[in-house]
Amino acid sequence: MPELEDYLAERRKLVNQTLDRLLPPADMYPRLLHEAIRYSVFAGGKRLRPILAIAAAEAVGGEVEGILPVAAALECIHTYSLIHDDLPSMDDDDFRRGKPTCHKVYGEALAILAGDALLTLAFELLSQGAITQHMDAQRLSVLIQEIARAAGSSGMVGGQSVDILSEGKEIDQETLLYLHTHKTGALIQVSVIAGGLVAGASEEQIGALSRYGERIGLAFQIVDDLLDVTSTTEELGKPAKSDLKHAKATFPALMGKETSMKEVERLTAEAKEVLRPFEGRAWALHAIAGYLTSRRF
Amino acid sequence: MPELEDYLAERRKLVNQTLDRLLPPADMYPRLLHEAIRYSVFAGGKRLRPILAIAAAEAVGGEVEGILPVAAALECIHTYSLIHDDLPSMDDDDFRRGKPTCHKVYGEALAILAGDALLTLAFELLSQGAITQHMDAQRLSVLIQEIARAAGSSGMVGGQSVDILSEGKEIDQETLLYLHTHKTGALIQVSVIAGGLVAGASEEQIGALSRYGERIGLAFQIVDDLLDVTSTTEELGKPAKSDLKHAKATFPALMGKETSMKEVERLTAEAKEVLRPFEGRAWALHAIAGYLTSRRF
Repeated sequence: MPELEDYLAERRKLVNQTLDRLLPPADMYPRLLHEAIRYSVFAGGKRLRPILAIAAAEAVGGEVEGILPVAAALECIHTYSLIHDDLPSMDDDDFRRGKPTCHKVYGEALAILAGDALLTLAFELLSQGAITQHMDAQRLSVLIQEIARAAGSSGMVGGQSVDILSEGKEIDQETLLYLHTHKTGALIQVSVIAGGLVAGASEEQIGALSRYGERIGLAFQIVDDLLDVTSTTEELGKPAKSDLKHAKATFPALMGKETSMKEVERLTAEAKEVLRPFEGRAWALHAIAGYLTSRRF
Repeated sequence: MPELEDYLAERRKLVNQTLDRLLPPADMYPRLLHEAIRYSVFAGGKRLRPILAIAAAEAVGGEVEGILPVAAALECIHTYSLIHDDLPSMDDDDFRRGKPTCHKVYGEALAILAGDALLTLAFELLSQGAITQHMDAQRLSVLIQEIARAAGSSGMVGGQSVDILSEGKEIDQETLLYLHTHKTGALIQVSVIAGGLVAGASEEQIGALSRYGERIGLAFQIVDDLLDVTSTTEELGKPAKSDLKHAKATFPALMGKETSMKEVERLTAEAKEVLRPFEGRAWALHAIAGYLTSRRF
């Protein structure tokens, strides 16, 4: 899929430029804090969430330029969650994407604060970005509420809590599903919704984007589980089988590798199906859904 | 000042009721996370920031009812900052307001997540509250941006970073001033601004409220420094002289007790002075400025 790879590379570049422009400069006081923030944000992320927001905006006829600050905000939330998840009292990971994690370089206190600052900055960027897009108060309020719910205790933070609380315990399929749809799924889903909201999508369109996001969010996490089981440390850039090391349940562990792969295929097909009404303008969302299943596992 | 004490008690009750209504219930899944959130929020705070927001709204003719969700959001941000500040890698405090800190009861991981959830919830409540007040998009965007800036790396989180980074080091007066105006001052100041914004204050009124907030924010912190030097553990509900234990600079340590008390008086007088144009409607803000200097030290 060379066309998609060009699209991803180009959008990733735009997102990186936007982040570089909107994040506080590394030499701003207090310098070590701003260094830590930029260290983690520019540690080589795929920018999946911002790209999903951009692709969703394009699917409803929006302009790429207008969605960029909101896309950057989503990446700030994602990066904050990684910094906090990696902390010694959480998942205790020393490496992420092949680089030492934030707390290994800057210490625990500054890593916690860098995460806090990124989460706070996200809402500043959301408000800024929405206003330049001439969103009305109702839509701006919905945008922030949707993102806050997806990121907070009823979404991502809730998922991470359950992940922490169930370490070393056997969990059932229901809990695993909660975990995956909340810890990573919620932010992926709301990224798609956010793109639609900023670009002026109708309620019906938001509904379709939401269903698409829900399905690829879960598929993405199952693929991650599969990769963790079958890959080497070198391929992942972080210790492989770390989920199993923590005695954490995964889809392949609970349902078997075959069934997990089938589930990914089913979710991907459904995700593509709900995009039908958008026709050609949703080609990138369509291709991304396929791309997720083609990752090696 | 019996009148002010009645006012504070009544407003505190309203804030507590609002928090109880707007926070996720303690039995909501994941239960331990929501328990931890409520444990910290209802650990006996004075609710200074929400009350300042209410009093500022009243000073420009706003209704108490309308500002309550925004007031609750400010307390969520304050509580999150306390939870994270108390962590072992930060100030490492076991007690706060006479009770074990969040991480002593729920563990470090859940304390970090409870803080993250509260910060996220704050922005959800801000958006919700603003919309019921029929704020336009421009004002809602300014409200969120102001609060995010005051709470983030150029405000409170920046202040806490400098506090952590200068532990055990000698710092100069400039750094101490940065520390106090950012770590605690910024959120106090923006609470007053937020009250004005929600109640429809003019730009001139916002300017006056901002100057008032800046002065009482700094005065409040100097009084805290003075209390920490002169009080016993029992009076404070947390280990006294903990700032000195960490070799942290304080106003009395750097400028002497007498000069610090004079500075508090000067700031209080200035704070009262800028309230003049609001006349009688700012009586509570006026009284609160005086109240801060009357705390025992």
